Amino acid sequence: MKYVYELKMKVRDYECDLQGIVNNANYQHYTEHTRHEFLLQAGISFADMHNRGIDAVVARLKMAFKVPLKSGDEFVCRMRIKKEGVRFVFYQDIFRLPDETMVLRSQIDTVCVVNGQLGECPELEALLEPYFEKA
Amino acid sequence: MKYVYELKMKVRDYECDLQGIVNNANYQHYTEHTRHEFLLQAGISFADMHNRGIDAVVARLKMAFKVPLKSGDEFVCRMRIKKEGVRFVFYQDIFRLPDETMVLRSQIDTVCVVNGQLGECPELEALLEPYFEKA
Amino acid sequence: MKYVYELKMKVRDYECDLQGIVNNANYQHYTEHTRHEFLLQAGISFADMHNRGIDAVVARLKMAFKVPLKSGDEFVCRMRIKKEGVRFVFYQDIFRLPDETMVLRSQIDTVCVVNGQLGECPELEALLEPYFEKA
Amino acid sequence: MKYVYELKMKVRDYECDLQGIVNNANYQHYTEHTRHEFLLQAGISFADMHNRGIDAVVARLKMAFKVPLKSGDEFVCRMRIKKEGVRFVFYQDIFRLPDETMVLRSQIDTVCVVNGQLGECPELEALLEPYFEKA
Repeated sequence: MKYVYELKMKVRDYECDLQGIVNNANYQHYTEHTRHEFLLQAGISFADMHNRGIDAVVARLKMAFKVPLKSGDEFVCRMRIKKEGVRFVFYQDIFRLPDETMVLRSQIDTVCVVNGQLGECPELEALLEPYFEKA
Repeated sequence: MKYVYELKMKVRDYECDLQGIVNNANYQHYTEHTRHEFLLQAGISFADMHNRGIDAVVARLKMAFKVPLKSGDEFVCRMRIKKEGVRFVFYQDIFRLPDETMVLRSQIDTVCVVNGQLGECPELEALLEPYFEKA
Repeated sequence: MKYVYELKMKVRDYECDLQGIVNNANYQHYTEHTRHEFLLQAGISFADMHNRGIDAVVARLKMAFKVPLKSGDEFVCRMRIKKEGVRFVFYQDIFRLPDETMVLRSQIDTVCVVNGQLGECPELEALLEPYFEKA
Repeated sequence: MKYVYELKMKVRDYECDLQGIVNNANYQHYTEHTRHEFLLQAGISFADMHNRGIDAVVARLKMAFKVPLKSGDEFVCRMRIKKEGVRFVFYQDIFRLPDETMVLRSQIDTVCVVNGQLGECPELEALLEPYFEKA
């Protein structure tokens, strides 16, 4: 159960809300951006897929917020991926840097919609297969 | 198990992403705004609480995305609330209008942080008690 | 020089940043949403236009920020519109409610891109002509 | 008239809207983040300043949008700075990488609000003085 990809980022002040901490919705942005960068390096452009009628969409997610990120914080978003039935399941954890304090644990279940229909996407599966966590 | 509050909204085009549907992170915005408006009508300002050292924060959430909202869609976010230990648990569902198609089911667990410490907030509890769902 | 359209909104707490005031970028969101709602009631859907290869895009903008909006504030965004050469020029002002304090003055110059080329869009012009401010 | 600071970034897909290009409001985010990173390396934390009662706020801005950024694009935001009366004037230009196509030209006028009053901030001025463009 090791991470197959990670992306370093830094909090941007506009992501903080009136509590002075990163607004929760931005963790979805961070995890989405990490997935898309992961896909890119695996040879898959989210935007190109959309233009060819293939949309990867989030069906379900769970997030546990541990410690909030603040202005100036650097962090890393690490991910693992599993295939379960039609779902691509991403486990994405965020750690503050450099102290590695856990900030977020999340599970994001995604599915493929091909020309408007929920379905398998063999092309995507072939490219991601090397990264899948085995049971 | 009936809803104790609802807020009607309309999709704003900047909330849609390159797939032409509302980006998932915005559902956190919609549910947060609904909770804050609910608190306001119950006599509680999220901003005032923060200024007095009381922060309601999200500890954990689960979301199931059913049907995406699109440009021009109107919708309603309905909520129920329960107290479980130190947690205020919000069940928030979004329905597209006027056809009442379910868009989102979510559960958002919040806790109070008082002067930096996780704790009970009797003031908040007294004001919200009339809305709590009984077991 | 009278306004031809106005839209009432309310600040959402996630729009406020660590200064406790609405982050400036949200004023672009407010003015964009107001333009799109104006277009809708004039019979024009921004999303439909895009799907038919016609994109209205902002070429240039000027904003003067007078008084910041805060958590809980209600406001109205009012607009006038003028045609100048190929540009549709929107004058959009925001006032806090109910005291009508001026929050923002802005001028937003938009142009039409038809199938990737800057150009005239007679369809849009015909629908908007009744709203144009005369010299 | 040379740039005194630059920050490289990459488009995140959630920043793109239904036109498939970066939504205009995000250019305010990009320029704000660049200013705050510039301030940080000059020894000034925007969040710390706020906590000590000093807020740098945008009074006025002008933006000219040349070529839109798209999914996958990398870019650099370069800035110059001038002092004019009480205003700190930032000239911020964005270029797509690696081809250096101009994406945005902007001028952002900021002022200091000290304990709620528009005013001079000698501390900020001393730290930024080495970067000021001379007339």
